[in-house]
Amino acid sequence: MAVDSVPVGPVRIDSVHVDSVVSLLGDIQRIGVDRVRGGYSRPVFSSAELDLRAWFVGQAERRGLDVETDAVGTIRAWWKPASGSLGDAVLTGSHLDSVPGGGAYDGPLGVVSALVAVDLLRARGVEPVRPLVVAVFPEEEGSRFGVACLGSRVLAGAISVDRALALRDSEGDTFAEVLTRNGHDPRAVRPDTAGLADLHAFVELHVEQGRALVDLDQAVALGSSILGHGRWRLSVEGQGNHAGTTLMRDRRDPMVAAARAVQAVRDLARDTPGARGTVGRLQPVPGGTNVIASRVDLWIDVRHPLDVVTRALVERVRAEAGTIAAEEGCTATLTEESFSATTHFDPVLRERLHRVLPDAPVLDTGAGHDAGVLAAHVPTAMLFVRNPTGISHSPEEYAADGDAEAGAVALADLLEDLLTGESDAPSLPRRTA
Amino acid sequence: MAVDSVPVGPVRIDSVHVDSVVSLLGDIQRIGVDRVRGGYSRPVFSSAELDLRAWFVGQAERRGLDVETDAVGTIRAWWKPASGSLGDAVLTGSHLDSVPGGGAYDGPLGVVSALVAVDLLRARGVEPVRPLVVAVFPEEEGSRFGVACLGSRVLAGAISVDRALALRDSEGDTFAEVLTRNGHDPRAVRPDTAGLADLHAFVELHVEQGRALVDLDQAVALGSSILGHGRWRLSVEGQGNHAGTTLMRDRRDPMVAAARAVQAVRDLARDTPGARGTVGRLQPVPGGTNVIASRVDLWIDVRHPLDVVTRALVERVRAEAGTIAAEEGCTATLTEESFSATTHFDPVLRERLHRVLPDAPVLDTGAGHDAGVLAAHVPTAMLFVRNPTGISHSPEEYAADGDAEAGAVALADLLEDLLTGESDAPSLPRRTA
Repeated sequence: MAVDSVPVGPVRIDSVHVDSVVSLLGDIQRIGVDRVRGGYSRPVFSSAELDLRAWFVGQAERRGLDVETDAVGTIRAWWKPASGSLGDAVLTGSHLDSVPGGGAYDGPLGVVSALVAVDLLRARGVEPVRPLVVAVFPEEEGSRFGVACLGSRVLAGAISVDRALALRDSEGDTFAEVLTRNGHDPRAVRPDTAGLADLHAFVELHVEQGRALVDLDQAVALGSSILGHGRWRLSVEGQGNHAGTTLMRDRRDPMVAAARAVQAVRDLARDTPGARGTVGRLQPVPGGTNVIASRVDLWIDVRHPLDVVTRALVERVRAEAGTIAAEEGCTATLTEESFSATTHFDPVLRERLHRVLPDAPVLDTGAGHDAGVLAAHVPTAMLFVRNPTGISHSPEEYAADGDAEAGAVALADLLEDLLTGESDAPSLPRRTA
Repeated sequence: MAVDSVPVGPVRIDSVHVDSVVSLLGDIQRIGVDRVRGGYSRPVFSSAELDLRAWFVGQAERRGLDVETDAVGTIRAWWKPASGSLGDAVLTGSHLDSVPGGGAYDGPLGVVSALVAVDLLRARGVEPVRPLVVAVFPEEEGSRFGVACLGSRVLAGAISVDRALALRDSEGDTFAEVLTRNGHDPRAVRPDTAGLADLHAFVELHVEQGRALVDLDQAVALGSSILGHGRWRLSVEGQGNHAGTTLMRDRRDPMVAAARAVQAVRDLARDTPGARGTVGRLQPVPGGTNVIASRVDLWIDVRHPLDVVTRALVERVRAEAGTIAAEEGCTATLTEESFSATTHFDPVLRERLHRVLPDAPVLDTGAGHDAGVLAAHVPTAMLFVRNPTGISHSPEEYAADGDAEAGAVALADLLEDLLTGESDAPSLPRRTA
């Protein structure tokens, strides 16, 4: 089935019902709408994300998949082969949480496309020789607990369980407390690198977060690598006081120091070719209009294809922020919250999948994904679906209906190849973590 | 009774129980503790502020005061004279809401001291010839709906009822919706300038928000004026996008423009003798770490003894912010949220009260108060109680136990003079609004 043969709307083939991506996204279009920011706010374990989880479980059960949820909140829906072992499974899926005021596609498109791919494979009469697992990873965006890809990091042992459980959200609740409140047992949270090593492959479909496919006039691409990136928290401490009664000369105002640091991040990133440096989140404490802040926390996102450049840039930010803070009578502390080296997806797997989708271009991406974390443990590939606005993490993020369906078909094509093992591609080498 | 004769702890005189300020503040010391910011967060109609309201009503009822709450949420507890009309009442009190992470005294000290003053007056056997009203004003800090002294502004007609009811909190809820949810009828909200004009006088006791009393080695001062002040919201609009996939040169990042505007506010205020300019609150939208913001809202607090200088400074901020925003490919809109001209308290009332407290120094203040709003309609005075840290709107705000009790005694002394009309001071002229 070629990419340009797109079934829009439900079709029935041999009594298998095939949902469309558009109709499934339509099911959840009212969940987590953010009427203040626009778009969607679906932080992990918010009522919106819980509604999405429940919806996903219902969809998986409707398809006869066996659903399980682990202690860290990852949902896995299994399509088990008629015979054979449960090892060597093919994993697909994405996440349902969003950034604050994000778009409708980042995350859900990968989950929904995986469900549709199951329908398509059944409609084609595919008989898997190994299991397919459709997964929903928790806290991919890191918008609640500050660490992106938190669920996959825990599974991959890329963050210690103790540190993960102690992370706090803006209400001061720890991840452990939030897990408990949602019926999970934090004591059962543990890495599962052995389980990951057992997997045959992981394929994550995602809306593109740039304009490359628009420029190439293509609907779908294969991923080659994920830019190295990390996030750092800069805490600037000053002296909280009354905005009316404190003379300008008596102030040690961390907001002024933080504002100067925001500019320094931009200036230093702009001076480093290929680098991206962003402050998108900034929180004054206490945050009242008539109060000089006592502390300002801000989060710095830095990315570069060369990890050594990312590290060097962050050290320049640290030095500059320290100087600025001292000039303002404040102190500044920079803490690494997460760091991911540049990830190159398995070239053997990509080569194999490229034979299935020979027209798909191969692109790298500046965005982090669970696929980037899991790639250290399992042969991993990504599929990108064209985003005509090139804008992401924003309500303007978009995928045309035809492209969304084409993405699901392409995913089904890749999964068919991986599940049936009938491909003449070379067998997959196991990577070492 | 002189200011230095301080009853610490409950005392019984003629079977009237006199609470101490310290014990009443102790009653509420666990309500609204902010374990993230430190200090207290008691925004109006939060569960914390509702608990404080319920506590106040209980205390007022224990004292046999008649409690009523108006549509805008002002609580009034009446001590009615044995005979005579309900007009010509003396008003005292303050507020129970706080800034985020504020201190224990700003607001509650005035409310609690008013309750203790009632005890003291009864213990002295004072028979009022006019009513005393102990009031709790809603949203004095403006920390939820953005307009300081919102309750008194509505009563004084200093903000239109429509505008007040349409104000939104950070959750997107309007003041009207929040009133309704708390059992008030927004349709009944209206100004009451006639009721205010009927009052005999208003005296608000407040913790000092600077160090003047520390330097003067005095426990209590009378207020002379409140610095003119206002708050303005600066909205900087740019282009929201993904922090990893958007090249530095392609950005229109409102956070960078906002950061430069924060610095401009400080620099322009520092260049204007006597001015204070503060950004204590800043909110990126959507506010995710891995998201270039699409909009940043920040609030600018500007104060100066001369209103014309305040206005001129704000116009310079507006021009500078516009230039910065254009340079960053963004747009900036500056909106006045509130403005209060410099308020000079009634000099005749102050002269009269100064005879009661001849040792009290007379101070102006840079902080806004409900007294500043009501002074346009009723002869108004303020009492300040020493704050050894000089720090306010912060957990470090403080009043020593002895000073707190001295404040309540001084308030009782003033109220006794105003309630009994036995003073030989000149009668109070009515001011026109």
